[in-house]
Amino acid sequence: MEKLLTYGKNIDLDIEKFLVQNIPTEFREAMLYPIKTGGKRIRPTLVLLSAQAVGGDINSALPVAVAYEIAHNTTLIFDDIIDKGETRRGVPTLRKAFGEVTSLLVGLKYREAVVRALEQAPQFLRLIKVLTRTIDEILEGAMLEVLFERGIRENEPFINSKRRPNVDIDDYFYMIDKKTAALFRASCESGAIVGGGTEEEITALRSYGTNLGIMFQITDDYLDIYGDEELIGKIVGKDIMEHRIANIVVLLSMKKMDEENRNKLIGVISKQETTKEEILDAIKMIKSTNVEKEVFEILDSYKVKLKEALKPLKQTEAKLILENIADFVTSRQF
Amino acid sequence: MEKLLTYGKNIDLDIEKFLVQNIPTEFREAMLYPIKTGGKRIRPTLVLLSAQAVGGDINSALPVAVAYEIAHNTTLIFDDIIDKGETRRGVPTLRKAFGEVTSLLVGLKYREAVVRALEQAPQFLRLIKVLTRTIDEILEGAMLEVLFERGIRENEPFINSKRRPNVDIDDYFYMIDKKTAALFRASCESGAIVGGGTEEEITALRSYGTNLGIMFQITDDYLDIYGDEELIGKIVGKDIMEHRIANIVVLLSMKKMDEENRNKLIGVISKQETTKEEILDAIKMIKSTNVEKEVFEILDSYKVKLKEALKPLKQTEAKLILENIADFVTSRQF
Repeated sequence: MEKLLTYGKNIDLDIEKFLVQNIPTEFREAMLYPIKTGGKRIRPTLVLLSAQAVGGDINSALPVAVAYEIAHNTTLIFDDIIDKGETRRGVPTLRKAFGEVTSLLVGLKYREAVVRALEQAPQFLRLIKVLTRTIDEILEGAMLEVLFERGIRENEPFINSKRRPNVDIDDYFYMIDKKTAALFRASCESGAIVGGGTEEEITALRSYGTNLGIMFQITDDYLDIYGDEELIGKIVGKDIMEHRIANIVVLLSMKKMDEENRNKLIGVISKQETTKEEILDAIKMIKSTNVEKEVFEILDSYKVKLKEALKPLKQTEAKLILENIADFVTSRQF
Repeated sequence: MEKLLTYGKNIDLDIEKFLVQNIPTEFREAMLYPIKTGGKRIRPTLVLLSAQAVGGDINSALPVAVAYEIAHNTTLIFDDIIDKGETRRGVPTLRKAFGEVTSLLVGLKYREAVVRALEQAPQFLRLIKVLTRTIDEILEGAMLEVLFERGIRENEPFINSKRRPNVDIDDYFYMIDKKTAALFRASCESGAIVGGGTEEEITALRSYGTNLGIMFQITDDYLDIYGDEELIGKIVGKDIMEHRIANIVVLLSMKKMDEENRNKLIGVISKQETTKEEILDAIKMIKSTNVEKEVFEILDSYKVKLKEALKPLKQTEAKLILENIADFVTSRQF
């Protein structure tokens, strides 16, 4: 699986090339910061593997891979502005390191750099339509995510007044399809398009990407509650701290709680400032409902769908790697 | 000239249609707010007139007109976030009325709605390239604008450390070409493209749009110092209040001041909070340098270029209106 990771990492120089175009030189450092702080390069890897899986040329797919890594970073920059995120990948977020205004301008420039990269690829017309629909979906997901939160956002009376009173599992799946799966879906679909895949192959990889994206988000949610901080390199309970009720583990566990405990948990999630102790208490309460097995069953069902989706593709090394990525993504011990 | 205004105003229903697509219904009100608070619809008018001026069909040009009004509003939404703007068109700005996070999400959605509108037009491939290049230019202009400011932005150490120590007239013209003229240029160019104009006609309208946009910005700068608050419906001295040295009247007048007065003026522009009295004093100081005539000469030179640019076009009613728009834009008593 190490080989897989090196796939995506080699595109960093290309990414940087597009990011420093059309900006005053003063902004260079801020433009490059999100890319230089790392990331797993999963989406560009998916673009390249999808192109290969349909027999396409990896060089034509490179600008598309670049585009989707920049698109991914665009969403991170704006997520951090929305959630006032302070740390990402173990270092200060762009907004924390460079300020809100710089962060906004850089994020907006990233959005345009995506198109500049995509313009270098064959089939630009079709690719740009996929990209726009995708960003539109991600934004719909981001809007839903704030509506699904608990607690009061400072200076946001509009959002506070519009919050959805009930969030169920169907709402959750709709939201993560937009927020997370859309970009996985688009990466695979676009790789297949630029690789010259048939319509059947393109549809197959779209479906594969959707299922992988959903598995990715469920794993993220799972690790937020069950993860080992040292192993995953992230704070556990971040969703609780950031008022997110739309975590699959939280939603499933609430269904198993009595009303008193459920209200207690919602109370912690809604609190403006929570102590580490309160978060660990909430996690203990969630864990006591034993929804782990249920989460793994859901993940397994998506893995079945994911393998099913790949069936129309010819047997290639790329296809084999795509199949195995599901294990890689759900382990996420990196 | 009244007829000209009704041109653009009739597209509001079409604009609204694109804005409410792909959003949770809770965000409808916020999405429609910027459009419902008015605006002169100059850019869509330019799209439609440019299409007509090359003999094109107005119906095919409509989605492009819609796209450019939405694009214009996108820039206003982000400008207000960057400058913490509180009032626009006589009412609270989107961020003031709905909060920062909603304002950011709405602004990002506007950016995507532009493409959805453009997708409805013939020649989408060429139009999307013009659009992306244009937004990229506007963002470069926005970056330059903050670098050109005087004073210290709160929580923005990066920007504060990167400010350009000297801003001259050449920097000014480069910046306003990106910040303001780019969108006028793209509106005219895109109208000519969708109208099926020849390459010569498209180039002519591009050049016309550039010159009109520069005249528009110079007039804006002029009115900020010389305007009558009641007539223009805006606060005079907003540029001084918001730390902008890159106003053509300010730049020209500083060249005529002795060092003491120049430092005094820069002092007021740099001040975190200025009183109405300080602003009126600064305006008096600027006016005493008598650069009015110089500004009018510059405007006249652009008017000559603008009329020159239109020469390759056939004599039509649309061309006549385009010629007269320059007077309309520079009067701006509305």
